[in-house]
Amino acid sequence: MTRPASSKVRRVSSLGAGPIGAGWAAHFLARGYDVTAYLHSMDEERAFRKVLDTAWISLRALGLAPEASRDRLKLTDNLRDAVSEAEFVQESAPERLEIKQDLYRVLGEIVPADVVIASSTSGLTMTDIQAKCPTPDRTVVAHPFNPPYLLPLVELVGGRRTSAETVEWARDFYACAGKAPLVMKKEIPGFVATRLQEALWREALHMVANGEATPADIDTALINGPAPRMAVQGQCMAFHVACGEGGMATNLDQFGPALKLPWTRLQAPELTKELRDRMVDGCNAEAAGRHFEEMAAERDRAIVGILKAVADARRPRDP
Amino acid sequence: MTRPASSKVRRVSSLGAGPIGAGWAAHFLARGYDVTAYLHSMDEERAFRKVLDTAWISLRALGLAPEASRDRLKLTDNLRDAVSEAEFVQESAPERLEIKQDLYRVLGEIVPADVVIASSTSGLTMTDIQAKCPTPDRTVVAHPFNPPYLLPLVELVGGRRTSAETVEWARDFYACAGKAPLVMKKEIPGFVATRLQEALWREALHMVANGEATPADIDTALINGPAPRMAVQGQCMAFHVACGEGGMATNLDQFGPALKLPWTRLQAPELTKELRDRMVDGCNAEAAGRHFEEMAAERDRAIVGILKAVADARRPRDP
Repeated sequence: MTRPASSKVRRVSSLGAGPIGAGWAAHFLARGYDVTAYLHSMDEERAFRKVLDTAWISLRALGLAPEASRDRLKLTDNLRDAVSEAEFVQESAPERLEIKQDLYRVLGEIVPADVVIASSTSGLTMTDIQAKCPTPDRTVVAHPFNPPYLLPLVELVGGRRTSAETVEWARDFYACAGKAPLVMKKEIPGFVATRLQEALWREALHMVANGEATPADIDTALINGPAPRMAVQGQCMAFHVACGEGGMATNLDQFGPALKLPWTRLQAPELTKELRDRMVDGCNAEAAGRHFEEMAAERDRAIVGILKAVADARRPRDP
Repeated sequence: MTRPASSKVRRVSSLGAGPIGAGWAAHFLARGYDVTAYLHSMDEERAFRKVLDTAWISLRALGLAPEASRDRLKLTDNLRDAVSEAEFVQESAPERLEIKQDLYRVLGEIVPADVVIASSTSGLTMTDIQAKCPTPDRTVVAHPFNPPYLLPLVELVGGRRTSAETVEWARDFYACAGKAPLVMKKEIPGFVATRLQEALWREALHMVANGEATPADIDTALINGPAPRMAVQGQCMAFHVACGEGGMATNLDQFGPALKLPWTRLQAPELTKELRDRMVDGCNAEAAGRHFEEMAAERDRAIVGILKAVADARRPRDP
């Protein structure tokens, strides 16, 4: 058993030279890890370092770990060297199943026993990816959101042969590494965040197709409307808090009938008592006893900061 | 003709004592206007002032206009007094068609000729609201996003009998008043922002109904994933910039087939050549010649600020 405690990991391997692989390398460096990056070819080094340079500006602004240093980076195009001392492996190879399956067949042998191998895949399942892997129990999907060096979300889900301990370990590890891990209950396409974004995107395409809005209209509406609030409260808490004392129950009882209305082309589920209770109980659990006024005040403080941050980022820069 | 130039308006009437009416009054006061607020009953004054107190904290943090003062507020429960000197009227009465229709029948007579009357309605059309109004040409929907004192979006759309000049005037007026007006091409339920939000919401309900995610999972995913990026780039520019040199064309050509996949329960439109061109041309127009790297850098600066703003807003406060 060579799997270290999730909080003791110091040496991470990031496989892949694209924006995701390089973005992960930047993130782990900023958190103070030793990072070995595997490039399919050293020809990719220039592009890799460009992502790293870009990411470092933001990572420094967010605050580097005391021990963070870009000198802790090693690059190699030798896969065995890349993983031989790894205590954790983040794989961001191209999104083709046969490439990933072949890679995991090899990684399953050469990565030190029990070290967790996490895939950045956005569209494949670990059940498929791990099909040829001789040690599938320690493989897991860990899907970041672009840009991965900035957005904290990591969606975690195992495949059929992934052990529960691996998922738990990965969740703890990413939390230690400064990410916001979300363990999924099932392997579903698009995980949580991409499904939600995709729903919104489909309605946006409908509106453009029907001549009701332009892409600029869509973006203006989001930037100045729901998005700043969503960035601090998500959507469930946004409705829960907006409805005051009554919370989500009031929202569903009052606006539930609107689910029948053609407010989008997209079909809502039936608002059964079971769904209503899940939403209400879930929101109460999420609020964890906090009064809606306290949460509304927090929301307002955050939106003020968000609006200022966006305006500030838009001010012209010196070249 | 008593309609003032949109930039010369000094006296605004806000009708309604709920969170929307009071929120509008707070916004206009913060922008330096004289505001007369109409309350259905003076019993509503306490709730009205509470919203105002809350809003003022954020409005002050965002920066008040030099001439802004809460002393510029007058309250009345006399509708005629409320509007007799108005240069602009923002109506936020209860969302019931018969109430609004009766109100516009009266307002159409007592509001000074040609002064624009804008409705905050989120669910009714101006074509219906203006049905009994003797002067419907100067009525328009101006739908804010909650909280209206903070989120800049105002969705504008006229009814069948609204003049084009009224919509144009309202757009200019809201821009002068520090809002982000979006003129809609058609009267469609939910306008733009609510439709997009509703699409996302329906998928969220599907996921909760199917036991795939809890409300807390939904919010975690949004807060740490798409929402901070959406707050600075919307969704079209987010994809356009993420695809580098290729922009939206690359996005649609590469991920277009995924529209057929069950990444949500919601049906996407067919990606016709016409839709593709509208998206690509629209994104290029929105980018207005800016290079994707400049936009990505702006995005990253904003996300850094947004993440800091949200973390800062969450820090416990002294009571």
